[in-house]
Parts: sequence; C-alpha cells; structure tokens
Amino acid sequence: MPAGGGEARADQLATLQGLAHERLTSPETAALLARWVDMSTGLPLDGTSAEGGEDEFARALLRETWRDYTKASQLPNDFVMRLGKTCSLAQQAWVEAKRHDDFLAFLPHLTQIVSLKKEEAAYRGTAGTAYDRLLDIYEPNATEAQLTPLFDELKRRLIPLLHRILSSSVKPDEHLLRQQYAAERQLTFGKMVLAAMGYDFDRGRLDVSAHPFTTSLHPTDVRVTTRVSEEDFTGSLFSCIHEGGHGLYDQGLPKAFYGTPLGEAVSLGIHESQSRLWENLVGLSLAFWEHFYPLLQKTFPDQFSGVPLKTFYGAVNLVKPSFIRVDADEVTYNLHILLRFEIERDIMENRVQPEDLPEIWRDKMKAYLGIVPATDREGVLQDVHWSLGAIGYFPTYTLGNLYSVQFFNCAKEDVPDMPKLIAAGNFTPVKIWLNEHIHRWGRTFTANSLVARVTGKPLSLDPFMAYLEAKYGDLYHL
Amino acid sequence: MPAGGGEARADQLATLQGLAHERLTSPETAALLARWVDMSTGLPLDGTSAEGGEDEFARALLRETWRDYTKASQLPNDFVMRLGKTCSLAQQAWVEAKRHDDFLAFLPHLTQIVSLKKEEAAYRGTAGTAYDRLLDIYEPNATEAQLTPLFDELKRRLIPLLHRILSSSVKPDEHLLRQQYAAERQLTFGKMVLAAMGYDFDRGRLDVSAHPFTTSLHPTDVRVTTRVSEEDFTGSLFSCIHEGGHGLYDQGLPKAFYGTPLGEAVSLGIHESQSRLWENLVGLSLAFWEHFYPLLQKTFPDQFSGVPLKTFYGAVNLVKPSFIRVDADEVTYNLHILLRFEIERDIMENRVQPEDLPEIWRDKMKAYLGIVPATDREGVLQDVHWSLGAIGYFPTYTLGNLYSVQFFNCAKEDVPDMPKLIAAGNFTPVKIWLNEHIHRWGRTFTANSLVARVTGKPLSLDPFMAYLEAKYGDLYHL
Repeated sequence: MPAGGGEARADQLATLQGLAHERLTSPETAALLARWVDMSTGLPLDGTSAEGGEDEFARALLRETWRDYTKASQLPNDFVMRLGKTCSLAQQAWVEAKRHDDFLAFLPHLTQIVSLKKEEAAYRGTAGTAYDRLLDIYEPNATEAQLTPLFDELKRRLIPLLHRILSSSVKPDEHLLRQQYAAERQLTFGKMVLAAMGYDFDRGRLDVSAHPFTTSLHPTDVRVTTRVSEEDFTGSLFSCIHEGGHGLYDQGLPKAFYGTPLGEAVSLGIHESQSRLWENLVGLSLAFWEHFYPLLQKTFPDQFSGVPLKTFYGAVNLVKPSFIRVDADEVTYNLHILLRFEIERDIMENRVQPEDLPEIWRDKMKAYLGIVPATDREGVLQDVHWSLGAIGYFPTYTLGNLYSVQFFNCAKEDVPDMPKLIAAGNFTPVKIWLNEHIHRWGRTFTANSLVARVTGKPLSLDPFMAYLEAKYGDLYHL
Repeated sequence: MPAGGGEARADQLATLQGLAHERLTSPETAALLARWVDMSTGLPLDGTSAEGGEDEFARALLRETWRDYTKASQLPNDFVMRLGKTCSLAQQAWVEAKRHDDFLAFLPHLTQIVSLKKEEAAYRGTAGTAYDRLLDIYEPNATEAQLTPLFDELKRRLIPLLHRILSSSVKPDEHLLRQQYAAERQLTFGKMVLAAMGYDFDRGRLDVSAHPFTTSLHPTDVRVTTRVSEEDFTGSLFSCIHEGGHGLYDQGLPKAFYGTPLGEAVSLGIHESQSRLWENLVGLSLAFWEHFYPLLQKTFPDQFSGVPLKTFYGAVNLVKPSFIRVDADEVTYNLHILLRFEIERDIMENRVQPEDLPEIWRDKMKAYLGIVPATDREGVLQDVHWSLGAIGYFPTYTLGNLYSVQFFNCAKEDVPDMPKLIAAGNFTPVKIWLNEHIHRWGRTFTANSLVARVTGKPLSLDPFMAYLEAKYGDLYHL
C-alpha cells in the first residue's frame, strides 16, 4: 500500500469490521444459536458434552460460534470506540517515545490503556481473574492458575541451564553471521527453503517488509514477508522459516469450513507452535543444515566456503543474553516472555503501577538474564504490544514454544526416520504430519484438547526442557 | 495475488458486491431519494433543473445517486447471476479460443451473451434503441443517434488521411524501437516520467503486469501497472504514461465526496480522455521528447546515442496499419474502434449475426485499414470485451480520443506557453489544469456538460482531425 493510503484503508477496514460485528452480534445470530445451545454457558441444549460424540464438527461449530458471539457481544460499542481511539493514539506515542527513549512520554497512554483493559476485563464477566479474561482473548481457556506455576517452574529450570551454558568453555564464532550478504541472494535462498518446506507459492508469495508477518485471505491466498539486512544473514532466513510455519498452518486450514470458526486457527499459542517448530526444531537443527549448508556455501562462498558445518551450526545456535526479545536465542527467549508475563499479570492485579515499569524491567532483566539495558528503548519500550492494548498476548509465545516440542516429538515418533529425511532435504513428512494432526482441524478442538489428542498428554515443560538440555548440552559440552 | 487465490477472491468480491447492491437498491435508499426527486425521471421535486442553480453539488448528488439506484434496480437478481455465470464461462472459453484460433469454439458463448445483452437492454427500459441502453452503462447519455453520424464522418476523414500518409515518401525507421532494452532501465525511466507528470508515489505505486491497468481504492491509493518486454521499448513507456493519465484522474478526484457518486469519474470516455491526453498529446509530442530524449539517450546509449531527436520522434509516431488495436498508432486507432462499434451496434439491431463476425471483421479491416488478418486470433478474437459482456464499451475509446484534443486545446489557450514548459520538463501546468477543470468535479457534471463547460463547445471531430492533419502533415510532408 502506498504510505498515503493508510487513513483510507483504516476507514474501509472499520466499515467492514463494523458490518461483520453487526451481523455476528445481531438478534438473528442469537436466535439461531439459542435453538441449539444454552446461551449462558455455550453447552449443547441436549445435555451431551460440548466435545466428542457423533457429530463432532457440528458440536464444535456451535461451541466456537457461541464463543465468538459471546466475546463480540460483551463489549459496549462506545467502549470499543474509546479503546480503539486510545490505542491508535498510544501507538503513535509509543513510536515517538521509543525513538526518543522517553518512557514518561508514553506513560500517560500506558496508564490509560491499563485502566481501559481493567474495564474490559469487567465487561468480560466474572470468571477467574481479570488477567484470565484478557488471556482468554488470545489463548482460549488459558488461566493464570495454569500459567503461573508452569512459567515459574520454567524459569527455575531455564536460568541454571543458561548459567551452565555461559560458563562453558565452548564459544561459538558469532562474527561468522555478521558479514555482508547480498539481499537478492538471501531472498532467493529463503524462497528455496520455503518451497522445500512445502509452502505453496501457487497459494502464496514472499515479499519484503520492515517487520515480518503472515497475512491470510483464504487458504488459497496466504502471504508471508521477511525483513532483509545485508549485515545479518540469520534475520531474514529465520523470518522466512518462521512466517513459513505460520503460512503452512493457514494454507492447511480446511477450505470447506472457510468463513466459519472451524476454518480458523485454534489460538495464537498453537499458531506460534507452527512457526517455532519450523524455525527452531527444523531450521536450527543439524539435520536441516546437513542438507542446506552446502547450498548456502554455494550461495555465499566468500562468507562460508572455508567454514565447517559444525562451526556454522554452533554459530546459528549461539546462546547469549541480549536485550531484544525478537533477536533472542532458544534458551533465553522464554525468559524475555516470563518477564513480560509477570509484569502484565501484576499490573492487572494492581500489584504494580505503570510508572514502576522501567525499574521492574531492569531488575528482572538482571535477575533472569544477568544484563541490564542502558535505555528504555532497549527495555520496556521495545515491543509494540501494550500500546495496541494487547495485554495477555505475550504468554502465547512461550506456549507456542512448549507446544512445538511436544508436537515435534510426536511427529518423530510417528515417522522415526524424520531427522534422516530432513538431512536428505525431504520435508514433506513434517508438513504432512502437521497438516494431518493440526492444520486440517481448524478450531474443531480447543488448544488443550488438541495437545492432549495429538500427543496423548497435557501441556508440559518436560519435553521442552529435555530438548534444550540435550541440544545445548551437546553443543556446549555441558 | 497468488494464482490459486482467484476463486476465493471472486467469492469475496461477490459477497461485497452483493452487500453493496443490497444497500443501494434497498427500500431505505428509495425512500430517501423519493423525498427529493421524481423517482420516474430523476428530476428534482421542486421543479428546478437537474443541473446548475444554487446548490450544484446537492443537485448533482441527487441526480447521480438516482441514476445509480435506477441502474442497479433495473436488473432482476436471477438475470445478474445468469449473466455473471455466462460471462465467467465465456471468458475462459475466449482465452482458449484465442489461443487455438478457434472462433467456432467461442461462437456459442458469444451467441448466448448477445442474447442476454438483448434481454438486459429490455430490462433497462424503452428509451432509445437497445444499443443506446448498453452504451449508457459506460458513457451516460451517449446514443447511437449521436455516435453514428459522428463516427461515420470520422471514418470519411480518417481513411483519406491514412492513404496520404501511406503514400508519403517519408518512411520512419521502425527498427529503432525494436532493439533490446533492459527491463530494469525501462521501469526506472517510466517511473521518472510518471513522477514528472505529477503522479504522486506517496499515494500510488507502479508494478508490472501482463496487461497494464489502473486500480483505485481511494484518491490516496491509486496504483498503476505497466507491461515490460525487453524487445519493445515503447510498449512499457507508453503504458506507464497512459495508466499515469488514468491514475492522475483518480488521484485528483475529490476526497471529500469519497463514497458518493461525486467522488467518482464521469464516464469511461472522460477517463480515457485523461490517459490519451498524456499518452498522445503530451507523450508523443516533440516538446515532450525535447526534454526526455537526452535522458533516454543516457539510459540507453547503445540504442539511441547516435540517433537525432527528429529521427526518434518520427519513429515513435510511425503510422502503419496493423491488426492489433492496442498496438495501433494515433491515426489508425479509431478505425479499429469504428469497426467494433459498427459490428456491435448491428448485432444489437439484428442486422448481423454472431456467426458472421469473422467475415465482417475481415471485410471492414480491408475497407478501413487495407489489411486482412490471416487468423481470427489477430482479428475478431483479439479483445476480451465481448466475452465479459461489455457491448457498448468500445466507443468510449474513440470518445476519449476526441475529448482529449478538445481539452488539451483549451489547456493550451489557458496556458499559452505550455509547449515551452513541457519542453523544459515542467508538466505541472498540465496536471494542475486537468485537476482544476476535470478531476476535482467528479460526477458533478455529465460528460456532455463537462465538455461544453470546459471547452465552451459541444463534442466535435474538428479539433481532433485538425490536430492529426497538422501533426502528421508535418511529419509526413503532406
């Protein structure tokens, strides 16, 4: 879109969203739903359970449509407009505040957003805590009661692992990935990897943008973007793979259910599990590079021709505490999320005030990662989320990481020679497995049921930690 | 859009068009209109004229809204669906028929479309002829009674001019424009020309497509495309200029009236006058190339460095009968249109049957242009329009050419040193003049009123023929 078209597009989107909202929350929708479900609980009127049974799809369709109807009906129109306007201004203020490293300029906006999100939580009922009701927007059924002990335990196990890695005598060569890499070749390589993953370019395309994203108009039109910097080879490639994972999910959603909840993704956490599975469990694996490294050496001979595979593999898996979440490695990444989770949860429970955030941020960075950002730009101001009113969003990143390992372990059990196939450049079994077990179901199962159904177990830390311990134990000779 | 996304987009567009149609033709719209206008004539209820007076915009808004409401209400839903489906199949059949040069494969589809268009003309009332009611869709108020004598006279004057040109001893060097031109440089040059025309890249962009087009989402988001062939320098550049002319119109429409008829273009003919004014009267002028030719020589030194400006100017203005309309020069172009106009008019009046078209086409090509295509692919099958159900569309191309000269003559009277400014690379006065006199009015005036208002005269052949006689008289030493 040309820069000048932004305002008109915002108006057009608002019109369409208004029309869609009007239809979803109309008395006709309510009357139709009320023929089949108890409108106060969402449970089927015939008394059977909301999941399973003879007509699983029909039941799921009712359950999820009721959910969407209920969520959309909870907020008064004037509140939606107030929140929208506040966030629009807050986001602009955040851009400026970040640019000038001026938290105080952002503070009044943040304070207003926090107050509105508390108001929103009140509109959204009385079940659970206020924070639970925000979490539920992004990760249906997720609760503080589930996440707090899980994330505490994760922290207790991640921090010692990080210390052991940092004390190791193994020091990967990080400068290897900070040379010059022609943008055109990076994109050609990224496209080749996407094609190998099974991303269908007949139903998608790759473009360049400042911040990578995936946008889906239909399973037959799912587009991904990547960023490109000539000084940073990994940024572009792993963005391709990450967005490619999101893209494969959306290309794999059931076309027959398009336009209904069953044609949509389960949750942000499950979506993130797809991007992270490809990015980390596939893209950062030794097997992946056994296939792609010779091709990469041909693409960038000056940079890599003399460098052994293992050296390169060590470099892309470098573990090093850093200030910026989106640049973090697999081991430190979730510590960035835990910090944000704790802050936003505590804000919602009034244990923390917005004005205290810079200091709390620095304290937690020190405690979890051992480093302290010198500026708020590299600290509390780095992410756009809160300025958009997205409180309760961050935990889905960590949930995605946990889900991804649980899923991938199952895939490897089902297809025992998967690492060998990957090393031979054959990614079809990974894609097919995800299509079969995750993508094609849309929102037929909730996140918790899907994990239990696919992996036979509830969400757990253990597979994730075992994966990290094994991989990094090996890499760092722990 | 990825190729695979076409079907989903068609569904999405159909949904949106259905919603828009539903609202436009709703009893609420009718009730609102009926408070102000006589619903059977569209004239204001207070008895004053439909144009002029104290509140010109309000009157125009009522007049044009009534027109849109009436047009949209004339066709029964089931007819719209039948026509849509027939055209969708016909267009696919046309693609194949053209590829295989197989008119008989397309004939049943064409026959069906002609029959549906007769049905459509019947739904659209009883005023004028059946063909008038189709013309009116694309060029409001245009009629056979106006066009037939005008186009007959145009033919009577164009054919002798063409013969004089072809008998001239002046033979421009056509191979000069059939060398190799790197695509990247063509696009850079095209972008430079667009920027010089005043096309605003902050509210637009240039992309490459198989068939050039302009697409407008709002005056702040108007995008143009061009085609690029490395063997054909003029195809890409003049497509840029042509689409740029359309783009400037759309960027110049009044933002305040966006979403109403007054924020839209008057007619296809007026739209085409804008593209042709820039393409022919500016882009094919000597003044234009006095400025741009040295820059072109720098861009393509191997191709043009030894070639004098006058030789190049003669080559881009080569007059030569050819089979394909979109490749035709200024002198022969309208003969291609007249042929199509006569055929579609005669089909609608039952004087000609669809099965006779290939032969009639060849006869008319022989009579008007002196050449006969060996295949239907280069003859009656070349254009997509009829397969889309667009009967009555072609005359707007010639109307656009006639309007363009009438407008440009006025602009030159208002700004007498315009050719000098153009030769100095200053196109701002052209753009500003068009903004002021055409673009900013949207549909406030009908095409006929706009021409009369801007030029002080009704539509006429004379300015156009005088332009051709002078320019080509000079070029071909007639």
